[in-house]
Amino acid sequence: EPKAVTARGRRCPLTENLACCSYGALKAWLPILSWLPRYRLTWLKMDLIAGVTVGLTVVPQALAYAEVAGLPVQYGLYSAFVGGFVYCVFGTSKDVTLGPTAIMSLLCSYYVDRDPVFAVLLTFLCGVIQTSMAILRLGFLLDFISYPVIKGFTSAAAITIGFGQLKNLLGLQNISQQFFLQVYDTFRPAVLRVPDVTLGLLCLATLVALTFMKSSLGPGSDDLPVHVRGARGLVWSFSTVRNALVVICATCLSYSFEVYGHHLFTITGQTSAGLPPFQAPPFSETTPNGTVISFNEIVLDLGGGLVVIPIMGLLESIAIAKAFGESTTSPPPRSWTVSARTAGLTNIMGSFVSAYPVTGSFGRTAVNSQTGVCTPAGGVVTSVIVLLSLAFLMPVFYYIPKASLAAVIICAVTPMFDYRVIAKLWRVKKPDLLPFLATFLLSFWQVQYGIVAGVVVSLGMLLYDVARPQLKVRDHGVLVVELDSGLRFPAMQYLSQMLFSKALTGGQRLVLDCCHVSGVDYTVVDELRDLLRQFQQRGEVLIFTGLSNSVLEVLLEAELPGLKHVESVEAALQAVSGTPSYN
Amino acid sequence: EPKAVTARGRRCPLTENLACCSYGALKAWLPILSWLPRYRLTWLKMDLIAGVTVGLTVVPQALAYAEVAGLPVQYGLYSAFVGGFVYCVFGTSKDVTLGPTAIMSLLCSYYVDRDPVFAVLLTFLCGVIQTSMAILRLGFLLDFISYPVIKGFTSAAAITIGFGQLKNLLGLQNISQQFFLQVYDTFRPAVLRVPDVTLGLLCLATLVALTFMKSSLGPGSDDLPVHVRGARGLVWSFSTVRNALVVICATCLSYSFEVYGHHLFTITGQTSAGLPPFQAPPFSETTPNGTVISFNEIVLDLGGGLVVIPIMGLLESIAIAKAFGESTTSPPPRSWTVSARTAGLTNIMGSFVSAYPVTGSFGRTAVNSQTGVCTPAGGVVTSVIVLLSLAFLMPVFYYIPKASLAAVIICAVTPMFDYRVIAKLWRVKKPDLLPFLATFLLSFWQVQYGIVAGVVVSLGMLLYDVARPQLKVRDHGVLVVELDSGLRFPAMQYLSQMLFSKALTGGQRLVLDCCHVSGVDYTVVDELRDLLRQFQQRGEVLIFTGLSNSVLEVLLEAELPGLKHVESVEAALQAVSGTPSYN
Repeated sequence: EPKAVTARGRRCPLTENLACCSYGALKAWLPILSWLPRYRLTWLKMDLIAGVTVGLTVVPQALAYAEVAGLPVQYGLYSAFVGGFVYCVFGTSKDVTLGPTAIMSLLCSYYVDRDPVFAVLLTFLCGVIQTSMAILRLGFLLDFISYPVIKGFTSAAAITIGFGQLKNLLGLQNISQQFFLQVYDTFRPAVLRVPDVTLGLLCLATLVALTFMKSSLGPGSDDLPVHVRGARGLVWSFSTVRNALVVICATCLSYSFEVYGHHLFTITGQTSAGLPPFQAPPFSETTPNGTVISFNEIVLDLGGGLVVIPIMGLLESIAIAKAFGESTTSPPPRSWTVSARTAGLTNIMGSFVSAYPVTGSFGRTAVNSQTGVCTPAGGVVTSVIVLLSLAFLMPVFYYIPKASLAAVIICAVTPMFDYRVIAKLWRVKKPDLLPFLATFLLSFWQVQYGIVAGVVVSLGMLLYDVARPQLKVRDHGVLVVELDSGLRFPAMQYLSQMLFSKALTGGQRLVLDCCHVSGVDYTVVDELRDLLRQFQQRGEVLIFTGLSNSVLEVLLEAELPGLKHVESVEAALQAVSGTPSYN
Repeated sequence: EPKAVTARGRRCPLTENLACCSYGALKAWLPILSWLPRYRLTWLKMDLIAGVTVGLTVVPQALAYAEVAGLPVQYGLYSAFVGGFVYCVFGTSKDVTLGPTAIMSLLCSYYVDRDPVFAVLLTFLCGVIQTSMAILRLGFLLDFISYPVIKGFTSAAAITIGFGQLKNLLGLQNISQQFFLQVYDTFRPAVLRVPDVTLGLLCLATLVALTFMKSSLGPGSDDLPVHVRGARGLVWSFSTVRNALVVICATCLSYSFEVYGHHLFTITGQTSAGLPPFQAPPFSETTPNGTVISFNEIVLDLGGGLVVIPIMGLLESIAIAKAFGESTTSPPPRSWTVSARTAGLTNIMGSFVSAYPVTGSFGRTAVNSQTGVCTPAGGVVTSVIVLLSLAFLMPVFYYIPKASLAAVIICAVTPMFDYRVIAKLWRVKKPDLLPFLATFLLSFWQVQYGIVAGVVVSLGMLLYDVARPQLKVRDHGVLVVELDSGLRFPAMQYLSQMLFSKALTGGQRLVLDCCHVSGVDYTVVDELRDLLRQFQQRGEVLIFTGLSNSVLEVLLEAELPGLKHVESVEAALQAVSGTPSYN
């Protein structure tokens, strides 16, 4: 029988796996042991279909995201296959797929400066940091990144990425990296490359149309005639693998022109064929002119990226695990440690095959789930597809028009810009717009500043509320002041000032209702001593009510002079009115 | 009639002065207008006695503190007279005296590196910062410095200052500035200067004896015979002006030896005589070798001092105003703005007469209060004494033995090291030892690191409690989980994880008692939506109770699916048990 979880501090809801026998403990670490022994052949069919579908999505996306990360296209595929194997062994959710994502690619582009050596070392360090966070149980750090901050960051990232691809869609040249300069460059009158623009807009229109078709597809039902069901299935399949479809068509088109010597489109160009070498991540780099960049220098150069990338990776993984993790296994292993562990291991192992940092992908996880995957084995199928592409398809990728990849990215990131969140924040909690806007706006400047600003603003708002508790004042002949929340040191000056001004304008007796106070610290105790002394000096009475036992014990231990406490406000009022010479 | 003060945000308890007429408003700014028109001659006698007594204390202390600050002795006196005039006009408490203090001198020594130009500019900037804080109402920043941090800092400062003076007391030479090296140097076998040691220990013994006598002096009473009263008065007077007494005797001794050509003691040596020039503070410095240090360079050099010194100055001023401010004027003007304003103005004006940063002095304020001062005019008397010393006594100060000044300082700072606070913290609230120790230990390394570490640790502890609220779980057939404090975004992951684990091990129905929740933010709302969705998916029921109206409105506005709320836990239990198919 699982042990009862204590109310505080324990953070392990994997109780169902933590049976006393060591095999149970092993299963908690290797969830594959839970499902592989009872794997059924019917599952295999579904896993195969889902794996291939996700594979057809991830290959074009990976090529496109590598472009976002500022790396040669093959690095996208290098990053796309490790996750499937790792998650199959260590993952707990059937749906989650790990791989290159738009946000990680954008972050990577900020910190690695188009240098694959930096990217691969960053992957390794990112994995080590994430794994350490899992081992040291540092997940609570993520608690301090609030929802408005995450939304502000992803919205800014969506705009930055989308805008960054506009140059490929329009075939513009010499566009700068910095966002604001990019905007300027993009809207500067320039020579558009008409074939690129045409192809790009065509791809975009096709993708949008297919997305729209999929979303307007009603739920399938066995009652429908067979040809309707067939048509529905066809539309569903086409729209699900729309990325692959569009890129394949565009590539065929560009190939046809190229073989006849017409260089109409801007194409991906030379890529290195074959599987990546399996080797330890590089701990230093030798530049072409012979200078050696040491490990320390690379780490210093990566700088804030070593904090932002592991944390953003974890946040994305956790968000996906929360959205998709529960739907199958009945007791949900919500533990963030699974996410941290799988993401960390994927990155560490990825760094041995030249991957750049990866995390859970929302879009592909959704595809996986919708296609009806049954176990994490679907991820292995996806990985095999990616490996096959690397082994055999790289010569074909030479001809992929950049405009088609740009269209894929723009469609992938558009849903990330969630304009409705502004309306929601406005309606539900207006002050939360502040951290949202701080993060959103500053993220265009430097993404780490945006996140830090958002966290600082939201913690500042939190501390403000701690420092300025609401006081409800009621007049029952005697003034009754009710603290609406806890009483901690930053609030104490304010409280005693307010009580003094009440005692001045109100009466000479005050009841302080502390029923919501769950704990006090030494500063509070010391200020209360001061307050009581001054009330006494001036012949006024201060009566506490509703103190919890633990708080009362602390106050008694501190031997506050003239401390008066009664159970309830009613008793206090009675005491005061019953005995006018109470003092 | 004074306007009712709103429950939140207003920070002006000077209501009694804020009458509608402009003269009342003027009186709030210039409290001298309140007491000068009704000044009585009987008060003058008391103010004169107190002023002279404090003067006899401040002159030797000022000389000694200048040594602590690493400046020529006259700078101590330059800093000691402005406060009296400023506080007389702008101050609200009869007792408070502003001037050089041990802590400000120590801080000054860290940041100005024995350069009077730096010190005077620091005074000016410190005054400007303090005044700005008063005008911009930034006093809430001080709320985040908790009592253990202040105690840790002052204790460390007492040890540092006391130890720094040991070299003077023992007549040691070539002692380094850094604390740890100082300890090493002091305990290294070295040649003690026997006359210095003898004189120093003698002064120390005298001071300790007189302090002891004063504290063991019973309360005076008119019933005692006249000769007893006379003797008591004599002892009281001697022990109150003990600093002056000891320094005068030591100086006479050293003078007697010096005139006969015996250089027995290490003496203060050359000082510049006369009043300081009245001039604008220097905004750049020209070194002896001709290089000009610009304003920017000086500011960069002062660095953290520009934060630490104004804030520590304010904290000291406020603590003193709180301890002594109330005893006379019946409604206490507790406003910290008075402290910030007077300290800021004193520093700004002080910088025109070459003062280094000053603040309220606990010891001299206590002397002032005990001697029976009636109005802030006593401070003017003190200032006149200091000015007279500067004008006429500087040649005499040449002969003051350094060992006697060291004894004065050691006696002044010993009470600042409050070892009992450790016991109190241990008894009342053990976790608060953490910020205390962090500040205490790191202050020996660098004082700003100590304070920052203490503030970070205490805020971290605060945030931990916000992030991990206590959950009280009771089993009434249905599990009832009571949140003991508010619910803000850092707590949400933890709460939903705990609720899930309860739902696993407990029953399939849960009541969440939110009676202590006073506000929610958007992250909480969003996580609750997620939580409700997952409870619903798994066919479990989550019922909220005790939500306040404002919180309930937010949740309704957010249209949470399946939100169930009842007034009280009892109603919830009834609803659940009454209708088993409640879902």
